[in-house]
Amino acid sequence: MLDLSLIKFDQNGLIPVVVQDIRTNEVLMLAYMNQESIKLTLETGYMHYFSRSRNKIWKKGETSGNFQKVRSLYVDCDGDAILAIVEQTGVACHTGNKSCFFTNFFGQDKKSEVDILFRLIETINDRKR
Amino acid sequence: MLDLSLIKFDQNGLIPVVVQDIRTNEVLMLAYMNQESIKLTLETGYMHYFSRSRNKIWKKGETSGNFQKVRSLYVDCDGDAILAIVEQTGVACHTGNKSCFFTNFFGQDKKSEVDILFRLIETINDRKR
Repeated sequence: MLDLSLIKFDQNGLIPVVVQDIRTNEVLMLAYMNQESIKLTLETGYMHYFSRSRNKIWKKGETSGNFQKVRSLYVDCDGDAILAIVEQTGVACHTGNKSCFFTNFFGQDKKSEVDILFRLIETINDRKR
Repeated sequence: MLDLSLIKFDQNGLIPVVVQDIRTNEVLMLAYMNQESIKLTLETGYMHYFSRSRNKIWKKGETSGNFQKVRSLYVDCDGDAILAIVEQTGVACHTGNKSCFFTNFFGQDKKSEVDILFRLIETINDRKR
């Protein structure tokens, strides 16, 4: 069992948590936990976070019903980030999207077009060498 | 093209970046970017971060050779987190692990055993109801 003292909380007592769907491997969201929300998550098996805007602990899905059942929890090599693998009920994002990461830097969602752009940048840089 | 003013940097001018492998969907690491490192990433097509410990911009792989070629960049629904989909050369973690998230909360890497534990918690909670 992990020694919670290995977790490095920031100056506000928080640690960022990357949340990934166990079925699709999609990255669903990034949220924050404090020590109490980690405790509640471990005790209940459901993700609990600390809301920086509302300044309180919330159980994901408490109002929407879109709960996140924990499947695994990892801490990174320097102890300052958590990865949670979850079973997501419904969608993760309050906008109705499955993932909160639905806006790409180029204003559309077609991965192939973004790929083409980055391949173009790559080609240009290769030719500069 | 994304209006960079939509990105909400924290009080230190940073934004957390979740990095995911395009081939395996593995979450590789969590790092931070400032505006300049985003600019360099877009210009070069390779991930650049801001190191909080060294207080400077670094190109991932500049010493190790383990570069991250950008394939897609997403910003989340409230503009305060980035998801980067990358083509990882070698491993992402300085420890030699593919991902920085190799330590699970229960001290081993067998997802099935962690699953069993969470299913046990679930069963106990179900019986309490």
